[in-house]
Amino acid sequence: MMNLSPLQTARYQYTPKLPGMLRNGISEICVKVGEPTQSVADQEKIKALFPNTYGKNEITFQKGTNTSAPKKHIVGVILSGGQAPGGHNVVCGLYDALKATNPENELYGFKGGPSGLLEDNYRIMDDEYIDMFRNTGGFDIIGSGRTKLETEEQFAIAAEVCKKHGITAIVIIGGDDSNTNAAVLAEYMAAHNTGVQVIGCPKTIDGDLKNEDIECSFGFDTATKTYSELIGNIERDANSAKKYWHFIKVMGRSASHVALECALETQPNICLIGEEVAAKKMSLSAVADVIADSVAARAAKGMNFGVAIIPEGIVEFVPEFSMLIAEINELLAGEKTAAFNALPSWEEKYAFIEKGLSKEAMAVFAILPQGIQQQLFLERDPHGNVQVSLIESEKLFSALVADKMAARKAAGTFNGKFSAQHHFFGYEGRCAFPSNFDADYCYSLGYNAFMLIQYGYTGYLSKVSNLSKPAEEWVAGGMPITKMMNMERRNGQDKPVIRKALVELDGKPFTYFCEHRQQWAEETCFTYPGAIQYYGPAEVCDLTTRTLALEKA
Amino acid sequence: MMNLSPLQTARYQYTPKLPGMLRNGISEICVKVGEPTQSVADQEKIKALFPNTYGKNEITFQKGTNTSAPKKHIVGVILSGGQAPGGHNVVCGLYDALKATNPENELYGFKGGPSGLLEDNYRIMDDEYIDMFRNTGGFDIIGSGRTKLETEEQFAIAAEVCKKHGITAIVIIGGDDSNTNAAVLAEYMAAHNTGVQVIGCPKTIDGDLKNEDIECSFGFDTATKTYSELIGNIERDANSAKKYWHFIKVMGRSASHVALECALETQPNICLIGEEVAAKKMSLSAVADVIADSVAARAAKGMNFGVAIIPEGIVEFVPEFSMLIAEINELLAGEKTAAFNALPSWEEKYAFIEKGLSKEAMAVFAILPQGIQQQLFLERDPHGNVQVSLIESEKLFSALVADKMAARKAAGTFNGKFSAQHHFFGYEGRCAFPSNFDADYCYSLGYNAFMLIQYGYTGYLSKVSNLSKPAEEWVAGGMPITKMMNMERRNGQDKPVIRKALVELDGKPFTYFCEHRQQWAEETCFTYPGAIQYYGPAEVCDLTTRTLALEKA
Repeated sequence: MMNLSPLQTARYQYTPKLPGMLRNGISEICVKVGEPTQSVADQEKIKALFPNTYGKNEITFQKGTNTSAPKKHIVGVILSGGQAPGGHNVVCGLYDALKATNPENELYGFKGGPSGLLEDNYRIMDDEYIDMFRNTGGFDIIGSGRTKLETEEQFAIAAEVCKKHGITAIVIIGGDDSNTNAAVLAEYMAAHNTGVQVIGCPKTIDGDLKNEDIECSFGFDTATKTYSELIGNIERDANSAKKYWHFIKVMGRSASHVALECALETQPNICLIGEEVAAKKMSLSAVADVIADSVAARAAKGMNFGVAIIPEGIVEFVPEFSMLIAEINELLAGEKTAAFNALPSWEEKYAFIEKGLSKEAMAVFAILPQGIQQQLFLERDPHGNVQVSLIESEKLFSALVADKMAARKAAGTFNGKFSAQHHFFGYEGRCAFPSNFDADYCYSLGYNAFMLIQYGYTGYLSKVSNLSKPAEEWVAGGMPITKMMNMERRNGQDKPVIRKALVELDGKPFTYFCEHRQQWAEETCFTYPGAIQYYGPAEVCDLTTRTLALEKA
Repeated sequence: MMNLSPLQTARYQYTPKLPGMLRNGISEICVKVGEPTQSVADQEKIKALFPNTYGKNEITFQKGTNTSAPKKHIVGVILSGGQAPGGHNVVCGLYDALKATNPENELYGFKGGPSGLLEDNYRIMDDEYIDMFRNTGGFDIIGSGRTKLETEEQFAIAAEVCKKHGITAIVIIGGDDSNTNAAVLAEYMAAHNTGVQVIGCPKTIDGDLKNEDIECSFGFDTATKTYSELIGNIERDANSAKKYWHFIKVMGRSASHVALECALETQPNICLIGEEVAAKKMSLSAVADVIADSVAARAAKGMNFGVAIIPEGIVEFVPEFSMLIAEINELLAGEKTAAFNALPSWEEKYAFIEKGLSKEAMAVFAILPQGIQQQLFLERDPHGNVQVSLIESEKLFSALVADKMAARKAAGTFNGKFSAQHHFFGYEGRCAFPSNFDADYCYSLGYNAFMLIQYGYTGYLSKVSNLSKPAEEWVAGGMPITKMMNMERRNGQDKPVIRKALVELDGKPFTYFCEHRQQWAEETCFTYPGAIQYYGPAEVCDLTTRTLALEKA
């Protein structure tokens, strides 16, 4: 039983906007070849690793007679990693371009992520099935998964599966790792003369797949708008009830783009940015003091309420915390865990910890709330390591701030009230109906991916740029993935990878935030974005992110 | 610094729809007097308590010459209790009707809830200020508060404040308690010949202020649509990743209307309804088994994922749990707490508990996860009582289900995986921009409240009905609040109160749910409502709740 919501039914009717240059029909799209490319760093090493796919030319599409060789295309598509709004539209755009070129072309959707390709588990797409997913959220069209395509054995199986079905191109929709792997797979397919092209599409709500070629990854717009809706609603609640500080954790382990975008949208009193904490080598206590200063300043004006946005991965950016984690892992390594676990009470365990940690690490450990202290020692992964990802950083910081306020009250420097509520937003935004922006952008990425296939490119990323402008002015084309690569140390080995984009502390979005945050911290400048609108005046339904608007301003 | 979002700017332009009979201008609204009323129960007692306001006639408005006496009106308005979307529009509708009648009329907004009236803390409304709040969420226009207006001393102060400003009518916007208090205040004002009228407006996102006169309280529509947006997004995530069971707690302590409405909107695998649990005297274990059966049935089909909606107050509906709480309160009453706290370890505390509880209570206690066991004994309110409201019922049930699945696996009746995620939605929905329904309904309630004032009524509730139809067909009028009252035992005294509406187990919404839930539990029938739309086709932006649609079907 499938019961469609009114919005889902209505969204089926939406026609995503293509870049102007792709609007003239397949037969009127030609290639404009640009400059040859170089990787952003480590050129010699990367060139050596990608002899068949390195140094290719950037290309853009333009209006003109299609000169590609006529050929039946059988294409495979894979959704890789965490869900991001718009993934369905990439598949739909790809499908539509492929079928518009030749109704006999076929699209295989490999199920459950990259493992679907290895296990030859697929569904062949048809109109009826595709139409059920147009402009909808989720990755349920074929499912997703986190298997990484990175070994020669896997590549050989992939080549075999492609050969079996006559598949001559694979589109991988994923984040930085998945696109890195797409480049390696493309090189393998070329080196082994398999005739299989590989094209990547930039996906991630985290916003950390971004560089001079990728203005933003898809899904970031919708996810941050969904979180901002909720944060704005909570701000309005805080400003109505005037009695709570809300600590709101948002997704983003490796970078704080989501937190920053939400802050630009909602103007909370506090937003922590991991990259700044790391650059300034801030201690937990120093971070808590930033919040406590806002609490105190507002309380002095009679406002015992506020909102603080905390990025999920914040503690991993605090140097002293990383040191503590490393020492704990060492303290309980191997057989020492059993001895620790045998201690009958927390008091005895605590004494053991106090004895085992360095003075510096113990100073950090001592200020943590007991619940988090226990979590660090009791909930460990199969390798015995601390599970940093389980740490509820929103509760950690509210507990630290509560201690700060109690100390300030004792010292006579704070005379207000501090009462906290906690929230975590992640799953709420990953599968929202894509905003018009993401619906358009994703459809364009998929459509464009097929044009790259048609013209025989491999190891390219589907690239759509000029995104802060109306879709008519967007620029569609392709960029060799190797251009975005550098060498990085991963698991003890030097690997060619797409560099993860962190929040740039001299970039315009962070600079804008810095210019305003003092005022936001002390006054009430909350902005209430409300729910994503898919209809209505263009100024409410055709918005891009504040991050992109500032970057391109 | 006030930075308006694009949606907020756009929503200022929205013109709320009035009931047809109120659309002809103030001068063309006349009263149609209906039947005299009786309270729903305990007529003699309630009549005796409300000699001046009992038994009045129901009234409706209709098109016709306005026959009210010309008089300058100075009106006070109060927002009482928790935020609900649309509160601002009640104030705006009241203001517009008042100013349309006579530009010299004045509206005093008492700040921070009922305490604003007692403390004579107010803001006089003007166009510029009112225009900043049209069609927006929150109660920040004047703030809200939880002070109860219920004592003679308070009433005397209220009368004094009204006299000082020449206020001749008070509008109280609140839930069942606040409207009960409005009736008592109205009686006081009448009995003391103060010349002050009192009118109530039905507010609460919980949906439990509902009866044969009130089809729904305002805010319920927007709040449940916001929660349903999030639940739908999580369902889509679950159906994409296919690896988690999501336990989602929603607001609603005394009744499960919110959970039920969200279930009707999103078709999750499980939705617990407190009223059913109470009626069937279900044990915690029996409730957990309902969920475990769904987990097992779905796992057997290869679906190791699902979504369960848990009403906030669910444990209070479980009879054996209430017994346990009562015993714990007894066990630690008075000085026994100190002795308990002095026990050095949890093991010793546990032994103390085991000795003190009855065998039946201990059986319940024993199956609780340790975190909740400790919470019950360690986190207690100032009176030493267990803080049931702090119990994270979503985590409680997922822990109980995890135990069930482990037992079934050991018994060979379950061969799947069970991994849980937890969410709680409350603050996210209380201050959302009101849906078109709530914007229209609330504006109408406020406008209508002024018509009741103009015609001299007191102790009435502003009543707008026929809500499942287009606004043109809505019926505006007033109902004596005493009509909705019965006598109930509160804090050891018999009190006249508006009865709280629980989910009716023979009502159409619950019946519909029952007819479908087995299928929803075993298959994947998720429905994805998406974000509230304020623009677009009527079928996406002018929706009422499923509950109301079913009740009026």
